[in-house]
Amino acid sequence: MFKRITERDIKAIKAIVADVKVGDEIDKEYAHDELGTVLAYPDMHVVVSTKQEISQVMAYAYQESIAVTVRGAGTGLVGACVPVEGGILLDTSKMNQIIELDKTNLTLTVEPGVLLLDIYEAVEKEGLFYAPDPGEKTATIGGNISTNAGGMRAVKYGVTRDWVRGLEVCLPNGELIKTGGKVVKNSTGYSIKDLIIGSEGTLGIIVEATLRLISKPKKTTSLLVPFENREQAIKAAPILIKDHVTPTAVEFLEKQSLQYSETFLGKKIPHNNFEAYLLLSYDGNSDSAVEADIEKASSMCLELGAIDCFLVDTSERAKTIWNVRGGFLEAIKASTDEIDEIDVVLPRAHISDYLAYVREVSEQMHMRIPYFGHIGDGNLHIYFCKDNMDESVWADKVKVGFNLLYQKAFSFGGLVSGEHGIGFAKKSYMVDLLGDTQITIMKGIKHVFDPKGILNPKKVI
Amino acid sequence: MFKRITERDIKAIKAIVADVKVGDEIDKEYAHDELGTVLAYPDMHVVVSTKQEISQVMAYAYQESIAVTVRGAGTGLVGACVPVEGGILLDTSKMNQIIELDKTNLTLTVEPGVLLLDIYEAVEKEGLFYAPDPGEKTATIGGNISTNAGGMRAVKYGVTRDWVRGLEVCLPNGELIKTGGKVVKNSTGYSIKDLIIGSEGTLGIIVEATLRLISKPKKTTSLLVPFENREQAIKAAPILIKDHVTPTAVEFLEKQSLQYSETFLGKKIPHNNFEAYLLLSYDGNSDSAVEADIEKASSMCLELGAIDCFLVDTSERAKTIWNVRGGFLEAIKASTDEIDEIDVVLPRAHISDYLAYVREVSEQMHMRIPYFGHIGDGNLHIYFCKDNMDESVWADKVKVGFNLLYQKAFSFGGLVSGEHGIGFAKKSYMVDLLGDTQITIMKGIKHVFDPKGILNPKKVI
Repeated sequence: MFKRITERDIKAIKAIVADVKVGDEIDKEYAHDELGTVLAYPDMHVVVSTKQEISQVMAYAYQESIAVTVRGAGTGLVGACVPVEGGILLDTSKMNQIIELDKTNLTLTVEPGVLLLDIYEAVEKEGLFYAPDPGEKTATIGGNISTNAGGMRAVKYGVTRDWVRGLEVCLPNGELIKTGGKVVKNSTGYSIKDLIIGSEGTLGIIVEATLRLISKPKKTTSLLVPFENREQAIKAAPILIKDHVTPTAVEFLEKQSLQYSETFLGKKIPHNNFEAYLLLSYDGNSDSAVEADIEKASSMCLELGAIDCFLVDTSERAKTIWNVRGGFLEAIKASTDEIDEIDVVLPRAHISDYLAYVREVSEQMHMRIPYFGHIGDGNLHIYFCKDNMDESVWADKVKVGFNLLYQKAFSFGGLVSGEHGIGFAKKSYMVDLLGDTQITIMKGIKHVFDPKGILNPKKVI
Repeated sequence: MFKRITERDIKAIKAIVADVKVGDEIDKEYAHDELGTVLAYPDMHVVVSTKQEISQVMAYAYQESIAVTVRGAGTGLVGACVPVEGGILLDTSKMNQIIELDKTNLTLTVEPGVLLLDIYEAVEKEGLFYAPDPGEKTATIGGNISTNAGGMRAVKYGVTRDWVRGLEVCLPNGELIKTGGKVVKNSTGYSIKDLIIGSEGTLGIIVEATLRLISKPKKTTSLLVPFENREQAIKAAPILIKDHVTPTAVEFLEKQSLQYSETFLGKKIPHNNFEAYLLLSYDGNSDSAVEADIEKASSMCLELGAIDCFLVDTSERAKTIWNVRGGFLEAIKASTDEIDEIDVVLPRAHISDYLAYVREVSEQMHMRIPYFGHIGDGNLHIYFCKDNMDESVWADKVKVGFNLLYQKAFSFGGLVSGEHGIGFAKKSYMVDLLGDTQITIMKGIKHVFDPKGILNPKKVI
């Protein structure tokens, strides 16, 4: 279906881009993403520096029917940036310039390879705030937009989609288009911008993004709230969200995941001897306002059955606790030889029943399935651990277990992915959930943007 | 292109839906929208009661290639609900039931014909909040979603798109699909939901919507801030947004529009003798927090050159001022025999220069062009007034003037519509802005959803 790359193609691409590697020169790193379950080498690893280079590479690839897969920092978890059809791996990680911080329109315009942590640094020193807060801070903004990344602050501030004002996109044929802009509202035709967001590099390549900023909240404080058990902690969360001011984050921690992370990081959080916790954050414009919110939240938690309420009141404490929370994925990865992941999102009301079911499946299948969750927004990360199983047993258990957990999620009105995307690994579950009609529509949309199907083939749909 | 309706068709549709009118039975109201510049009668006015009826009507219409245009409350301003190709006018205004207020997941599920004011009432009495606040409270939620309506609180809370969690949609062939759900995050394939939002009834029919709710802010207060002139007021707005907590709303009022509205409503606002005003709103979780925000905002306004700062501290005062602000469109309509409207959105930084240009065009063309604006989000509503001109002179002036104002907006990075949509009236300007490539993509998307082109023909693209 796609043309195999020839010497002539290599020469043509090298005439456009300086940094090109082929064949054995390509590092194994570029054959997989962070999870590593999908593995495939590109024929060429092309590190672009400008949008004009992207445009020229795509024009050539389109004409020659060469498959192209875009990669940022490679921190994805569903194989979306793995070049499963070979061809060109178009690497945007060196396009890492912040183009403009516009303090009047409150926008930040960036190249796609800028890392999340660099965005925070650039805006926060100016008293401004980019709210999306995915766990992986070394992801690129291009990747964040492509998966519609979520993160911990989604409860109050929404997801990446809500913070993208405008995009410049290179279409598969090399044409550049702009959608949206430095504007707050837009009702000008179909939202191409919102179609590109979350499309995992299958419709076009993000070559520039204009992000929304707000004034940085002056004060943020967290509460660590232990409960007798999982059910009580999870039951409290929606009540705290409904009957009080919206928290910035509502994370759920359970003893098991906490212990993995503590062991991995060699750090202990204070008050670490309880079964289940909520970790709540509140932000606001003054110390007194946030203190009042925290006080109300504390008394609500105690009324809702919390054992205690620990104010995370020093920056050191906050750092320890959030680091332990942030270390869950790394800790679980380090605890076994291979993992696979489920990233379902559910209506908040069903989280407790769902996690009970996860425990049940874990026991029935004799497999370790640790999890943690953005309980405030219903997004759970559930990890199957290989733990020295035979390859074939492991493959089988993943298949059976994933199927059980996705079907249960769907029965609760849940969806396949809250923030990690579909990529290569989760396609069949999306088909199960959405059915033929929606898949046909998605395929139709793909064909409109990419009639030759050269951009990130075999991904999403 | 479309089949003209026959007696057999009428009989078939009457077998599905009880409330059907044909020919002379159809009221003139159903041949136009609120602005009235686009006029066309349907062959049948079909008032549906359930999504099953919609599905059956569409299956029949699709099979027979009959044009179908959906109408809610008919409050649009771009002709989107006018059946310019005749056929069926599918009226959802009687589908006005609130299906479920889910207090755990904080969602409200509604039929498409529910009015905005009924949504506010249903949720606010439960201490909950649906933030989008378009001026027209008797619009339906289906219409709001179809235009991605914005409103005054967009500065802090975003637009309708940000408050839609899930949709059930009837496709042109009668199939029903669900997209999104009661979930906060979603990275499950291309966002069909976001494509339907703002598509003005051209891709599918919204038959049910699940909206996001939050806890209602406990306190809201406004400030009326007079300035020497337009430039000073407009220059202050972005600084207030950047260097302080985000206001709920930042509206711009000028003497002229104020006087139209006062005359029309027979009410005067306090302190009405200044050239230009900002009307600011702040909300929060306690009296003291909002008072602190207001105090800071007041001192900032005075530093930024405000003549004074009037606290809108009684509910009566607030009602008067916001009613006068809300009455602008009605007042301008009442002041002349016909109007036409521009709804551009611009980067905030260019508003002042742009409004100076509007004044210039008004003087050069000897035409009254009043305006008002959601200055906080860069969305301006600009009205050309016919004022007893000859039809041909009027048509000519609208054409020339619109062209000047859109081109100027585009040169500032502005877009055709901030919240009213493209519909029938603004299509050519969208083509000018977006160019052939994006229009071709949009046409392709339309074809994917509606290969026969029966749904709301000649609209948007």
